[in-house]
Amino acid sequence: MSPKVTTELLKQLRQVMKSPRYVQEPVQAYIVPSGDAHQSEYIAPCDCRRAFISGFDGSAGTAIVTEQHAAMWTDGRYFLQAANQMDNNWTLMKMGLKDTPTQEDWLVSVLPEGSKVGVDPFIIPTDQWKRMSKVLRSAGHDLVPVKENLINTIWTDCPQRPCKPLITLDLSYTGVSWREKIVALRSKMAERKVLWFVVTALDEVAWLFNLRGSDVEYNPVFFAYAVIGMNTIRLFIDGDRMMDPAVREHLQLDSTLEPEFKIQVMPYGSILMELQAIVAGLSPKEKVWLSDKASYALTEAIPKAYRYLTPYTPVCIAKAVKNASETEGMRRAHIKDAVALCELFNWLEKEVPKGTVTEIIAADKAEEFRSQQQDFVELSFATISSTGPNGAIIHYKPVPETNRTLSVNEIYLLDSGAQYKDGTTDVTRTMHFGTPSAYEKECFTYVLKGHIAVSAAIFPNGTKGHLLDSFARSALWDCGLDYLHGTGHGVGSFLNVHEGPCGISYKTFADEPLEAGMIVSDEPGYYEDGSFGIRIENVVLVIPAETKYNFKNRGSLTFEPLTLVPIQTKMIDVSLLTQKECNWVNDYHLKCREVVGAELERQGRHEALQWLIRETEPLLRAQ
Amino acid sequence: MSPKVTTELLKQLRQVMKSPRYVQEPVQAYIVPSGDAHQSEYIAPCDCRRAFISGFDGSAGTAIVTEQHAAMWTDGRYFLQAANQMDNNWTLMKMGLKDTPTQEDWLVSVLPEGSKVGVDPFIIPTDQWKRMSKVLRSAGHDLVPVKENLINTIWTDCPQRPCKPLITLDLSYTGVSWREKIVALRSKMAERKVLWFVVTALDEVAWLFNLRGSDVEYNPVFFAYAVIGMNTIRLFIDGDRMMDPAVREHLQLDSTLEPEFKIQVMPYGSILMELQAIVAGLSPKEKVWLSDKASYALTEAIPKAYRYLTPYTPVCIAKAVKNASETEGMRRAHIKDAVALCELFNWLEKEVPKGTVTEIIAADKAEEFRSQQQDFVELSFATISSTGPNGAIIHYKPVPETNRTLSVNEIYLLDSGAQYKDGTTDVTRTMHFGTPSAYEKECFTYVLKGHIAVSAAIFPNGTKGHLLDSFARSALWDCGLDYLHGTGHGVGSFLNVHEGPCGISYKTFADEPLEAGMIVSDEPGYYEDGSFGIRIENVVLVIPAETKYNFKNRGSLTFEPLTLVPIQTKMIDVSLLTQKECNWVNDYHLKCREVVGAELERQGRHEALQWLIRETEPLLRAQ
Repeated sequence: MSPKVTTELLKQLRQVMKSPRYVQEPVQAYIVPSGDAHQSEYIAPCDCRRAFISGFDGSAGTAIVTEQHAAMWTDGRYFLQAANQMDNNWTLMKMGLKDTPTQEDWLVSVLPEGSKVGVDPFIIPTDQWKRMSKVLRSAGHDLVPVKENLINTIWTDCPQRPCKPLITLDLSYTGVSWREKIVALRSKMAERKVLWFVVTALDEVAWLFNLRGSDVEYNPVFFAYAVIGMNTIRLFIDGDRMMDPAVREHLQLDSTLEPEFKIQVMPYGSILMELQAIVAGLSPKEKVWLSDKASYALTEAIPKAYRYLTPYTPVCIAKAVKNASETEGMRRAHIKDAVALCELFNWLEKEVPKGTVTEIIAADKAEEFRSQQQDFVELSFATISSTGPNGAIIHYKPVPETNRTLSVNEIYLLDSGAQYKDGTTDVTRTMHFGTPSAYEKECFTYVLKGHIAVSAAIFPNGTKGHLLDSFARSALWDCGLDYLHGTGHGVGSFLNVHEGPCGISYKTFADEPLEAGMIVSDEPGYYEDGSFGIRIENVVLVIPAETKYNFKNRGSLTFEPLTLVPIQTKMIDVSLLTQKECNWVNDYHLKCREVVGAELERQGRHEALQWLIRETEPLLRAQ
Repeated sequence: MSPKVTTELLKQLRQVMKSPRYVQEPVQAYIVPSGDAHQSEYIAPCDCRRAFISGFDGSAGTAIVTEQHAAMWTDGRYFLQAANQMDNNWTLMKMGLKDTPTQEDWLVSVLPEGSKVGVDPFIIPTDQWKRMSKVLRSAGHDLVPVKENLINTIWTDCPQRPCKPLITLDLSYTGVSWREKIVALRSKMAERKVLWFVVTALDEVAWLFNLRGSDVEYNPVFFAYAVIGMNTIRLFIDGDRMMDPAVREHLQLDSTLEPEFKIQVMPYGSILMELQAIVAGLSPKEKVWLSDKASYALTEAIPKAYRYLTPYTPVCIAKAVKNASETEGMRRAHIKDAVALCELFNWLEKEVPKGTVTEIIAADKAEEFRSQQQDFVELSFATISSTGPNGAIIHYKPVPETNRTLSVNEIYLLDSGAQYKDGTTDVTRTMHFGTPSAYEKECFTYVLKGHIAVSAAIFPNGTKGHLLDSFARSALWDCGLDYLHGTGHGVGSFLNVHEGPCGISYKTFADEPLEAGMIVSDEPGYYEDGSFGIRIENVVLVIPAETKYNFKNRGSLTFEPLTLVPIQTKMIDVSLLTQKECNWVNDYHLKCREVVGAELERQGRHEALQWLIRETEPLLRAQ
């Protein structure tokens, strides 16, 4: 894969940065953040402005272009990918390394005195605007909102914003109606004494109304905003999607409803004007609640005295705690997902030795098996199908230029997942189809020990997930190994595969405490640049634990794996496991065999069942 | 101990809160923070305003008095003590519990509209002022600086500010001269492009000039500020201390020096005026660096455009990394401290069965043994000598009203330490002089497992201490037990026993990464209210570790215990230890026996040596 040639594009961008047609005064730097107007992780093609200008298309990264420089900030997952995709016009800024400057500090170091730094206020989250603006101002520069997106002015073939049909979810999936969710939200609003709540994140709009969409790949969401008042509901959404009788019925658009549940449908693009109108009618002490990650354009529309910003919205927090219907759905989805992976690994075991299976073929095959399962909708993220050195590129996605053939001599890492109507999956398994080396087994076993340490951890109710992160690293650290990513993220229920407000990471200090019903991933890894990658990932449910003393009735929590896919025992150096760890693996495999075995049986998938039985043979540990 | 009667005092305070003699406009609430003008943890009697108004004299707590209410915020260490020391006029706000409001939120909930909240700007740290001021303003109230301290107006017998002689430390103790420290500081200032640095913390002034004092109990510091320019040094200090020939010689006050090392001595009280004069002479882009915990009075004197605030100052960070002379001094101090404790525990073992030893007698005896050691200066904090239920009061200090007699039926917890001219110690041991119950041994053993997990942890260079906190809790968590305090704090070298910028706590997220040469405590515990307290504390030095793969040359770190006092094996349930943990205890005890044994021998303390040998017999673990 050759890097994108950006010389001409950068020249054009630098021209419009000075053009009075687009900017009141020339800007000496222009920031191109990763996100869309909803701070989505996965974005529609029309919003991939940073990839357009730089070539780097990983999920996280911020580009800044000045007269002289073009620099890209991204994190450890993407160092290799970004270096490969960008040409020499770009400097890679490796976030997380000690000597890498922040964007603000870098700007201060390169800009001439009294510079203006431009950014599209609809794309930059408020918290980021504030942080940058403060640092720049204190160094004598100005962060200025540029209304017209400058990338769009040079992106002649920019695609249209998608506007696909909606899916309605009934109570059997959601457990709670949208009306009940609105009632609960209004009670949180009353608690905080706010009159209005602006829903800006796409998954929050989808969750609140029990609707799903497909405007963005992988995340079953649709472009919309909502503004909830104590007596009004406004939904900002485009297209003829509201003409769909199923949607009208679901939202009771044509029923005579109590006025406080009547949904007013408005054009997507009118959110700013409507918000300004609402604000104009406010009296002192009447507050508008929105996320501190909402776009600066929306936040700016609300005078400071009326703003109530929080890192996590009440919708985000409510969404994270899954109810019984959602949990049951997640369990079903994971069993179906395990069936598909048993089929895949059985197939790979036979096909890989022939030398005909590439990373792309394996990924496609995984999708094929998943798509055979009931209520399958789409993948939940781009499949990471990577063998040998590609496995060390943490968020690798095979493309024809990098596509390697699986072999019996290399480790294969598959990180994949799907959206089913009853749940979202995300699972990583690391396999060897020949004979792994002692070093590969050693590293794999440390990663497994870390995975188990988190999965089997017991902790008091109210513990924040980031306090568990080091458990995943301890076995690796003992030998001088580590990995440059967090250990886990929240997982949505037929929603975004990465969601807040909880997670397990050394970086996440603003996470909300874990509580029973929350769902996160547990995915430590180890990566050897140029050689291989190892990661073992389960999605796990936070459940009450039984402990001898129960934290003086504060309550105990632990995790239950929802993912039920065998962990390749061939890769384990059993001599490095404690008896407790060995028992954990055997118990886990027994559950895989029983639960997934029954479903394979039911679906008549006998060969995959035999594979499952072979792969779940108990480990024996020398005493 | 009966609580302080505060009815009349609160009445007087509420009067001055409205008196035009002291406030421009009446204040509806008045905040009485814990600290002095230097944000010291231990404060001089003249600064104990919060204790004066409330009766609660723990080391941490903030009082807020309104027309109707008087409320006290403090943390888990002090819940019991504060409840005991305060009368019914006061409401205890238990910080760290879920339902406890922050001071700001509480004020907003109780104040009438448009209230003024007063505070002494010299006492409130800037970061706290900013946070409170923001929340109060957004709720329509105002935080206002009240120049005259209102507690002082009603505190008729307030003691004088102390002004005791100084101690000069030569190179054999400090390793680095004050001139070299100034040079290093100026290079950090140049890196950040600041022209002035204001030293506000007392231990930073003491460290920078290689001076010590005794103005405050336990911390060998003196009341002073310093302002370091690129070519000037101003030291703000009162009294005739600068007349001492040793001090004049040490600071080279009478030598013909290069002007940039010439120290101008100025009165302590002139800092604000001098700072204002410096600021008046600044041109744009010329910055003044100070801690964001400096008093609001000083910060306010510097216009925003000239301020450079950081959570940790360059002096704080340099001070934390001990050089070879300091490390050697700390080692010597800890060996002498261990000698004193071997004497003490040997004595206690004989005396406790007689029923004549109280907590106070034991504490005094510990001080007596310590004071026999070379270069002993004073204790490093108030000795926590606690038996039975008193052990559950985490920062307990025995007073006649609470003083219990040690017995063979109760656990005894001793948390104590001293200042020696060559180092600072802080050690906790938990002993039973009879036969501990199975439950007591079980809890002790979990605490020990946590202690070992931290002490033996291996982690990559650059890891922040808070990432190690959960290691200390894991064994307790497994059984549903926990403790409500952090696991460790930085320790000064003949300086404050608690110092930043590193620590090991679930609460410390702004800590600086650990590096070789830093010194912290490792002190997990378990507390059963009304029954007993257990804590095992060593002071440990961060050292390079040897690991198989060394984090791709990033480097490996671990800890070396500086404290060398036996851990009572009688309290250990060996069956709960792994072989590795058992080996750790035996190796540790062997080192205690060899190193401290040699010193006991040298000092001719034969009986204590016999005790040490008995107490360091290896544990035997059934296979």
